Amino acid sequence: MELYSGPINKLIEELAGLPGIGEKSAGRLAFHLINMPRPKVERLANTILEAKDKVCYCKQCYTLTDKELCPVCSNEKRDRSTIMVVENSRDLAAYEKTGKYQGVYHVLHGAISPMLGVGPQDIKLKELISRLEDDLVKEVIIATNSSLEGETTAMYISKLIKPTGVKVTRIASGVPVGGDLECIDEVTLLRALEGRTEL
Amino acid sequence: MELYSGPINKLIEELAGLPGIGEKSAGRLAFHLINMPRPKVERLANTILEAKDKVCYCKQCYTLTDKELCPVCSNEKRDRSTIMVVENSRDLAAYEKTGKYQGVYHVLHGAISPMLGVGPQDIKLKELISRLEDDLVKEVIIATNSSLEGETTAMYISKLIKPTGVKVTRIASGVPVGGDLECIDEVTLLRALEGRTEL
Repeated sequence: MELYSGPINKLIEELAGLPGIGEKSAGRLAFHLINMPRPKVERLANTILEAKDKVCYCKQCYTLTDKELCPVCSNEKRDRSTIMVVENSRDLAAYEKTGKYQGVYHVLHGAISPMLGVGPQDIKLKELISRLEDDLVKEVIIATNSSLEGETTAMYISKLIKPTGVKVTRIASGVPVGGDLECIDEVTLLRALEGRTEL
Repeated sequence: MELYSGPINKLIEELAGLPGIGEKSAGRLAFHLINMPRPKVERLANTILEAKDKVCYCKQCYTLTDKELCPVCSNEKRDRSTIMVVENSRDLAAYEKTGKYQGVYHVLHGAISPMLGVGPQDIKLKELISRLEDDLVKEVIIATNSSLEGETTAMYISKLIKPTGVKVTRIASGVPVGGDLECIDEVTLLRALEGRTEL
């Protein structure tokens, strides 16, 4: 016997298919949605569709935006000689939150992963290279994740760009600020040691 | 400066308003939704609206269902002499999952909470009492949560029903199966002691 009636089960199934939502959360969410007033539910459904429909890639850095150029690329004060390469728009937002980075970005929308069958042609790499044709670009900072895929992508990009003479750098890897050495994995500890700087 | 463009921010805000979804999960969800194919997004939005529109209360036990009677109430094999009172449809489903309870249910849709301003008239209590007018009912099992609100509701219901002569029982409170005594709070430990049974 099914525990809930058809439409509820269908909703729970749909919600459980989203990332980070397990079966229990899906159940809780579904009942919350059903108990919400109709106009609010409508607004949520419309917001989802609207976001899907209006959001597109920035013509320059390929982050997700609803205009031709994203707020960073259309900001004339940003330093166009430095491009930070990130895996996705959330990583871009993470660096924007620091409020200290003055350059522009390039969003790859993924990382090279032979395991998942994602090759260099599946991410926005060609688009990055064509941006370097502009002589203005002096440095490319690779800020892909510190995962196997992120590191592979970083290596690949650096090999691709170095011949063009543009400086390629990689963000530092080490112990997070406030991190307790005791709780940090060995690979990170070794990285932190290798990357030590003089005081 | 806003980190994301308008429609993305709006979506994140809407999602973060749902229970159990923080700002970070909302961001992750929003980008997942935007990257999903249009037909899938449409299906999700429609499923939400459909569930909202089709789901109503069971005429008898007030659980959420899309028919006049829920699967339990329309099942002729269920024992109508025992009514288990639960706070919501998810609690009903939790007991249904055990597959052992043969009686029927009554869903209160809440619990009495002076703190939140929820009184006896705000939950489906009148409806429970009117079900007891049927002489068939021999026992009411109160399975509200073991929280302050749940206990208050249980006490209130038992005082209400006892004069009618119907047997009122409360599900046992104690150490969960597989639970480590060390990790269990003192109130539960005392409850378990009080409720000890002879072997």
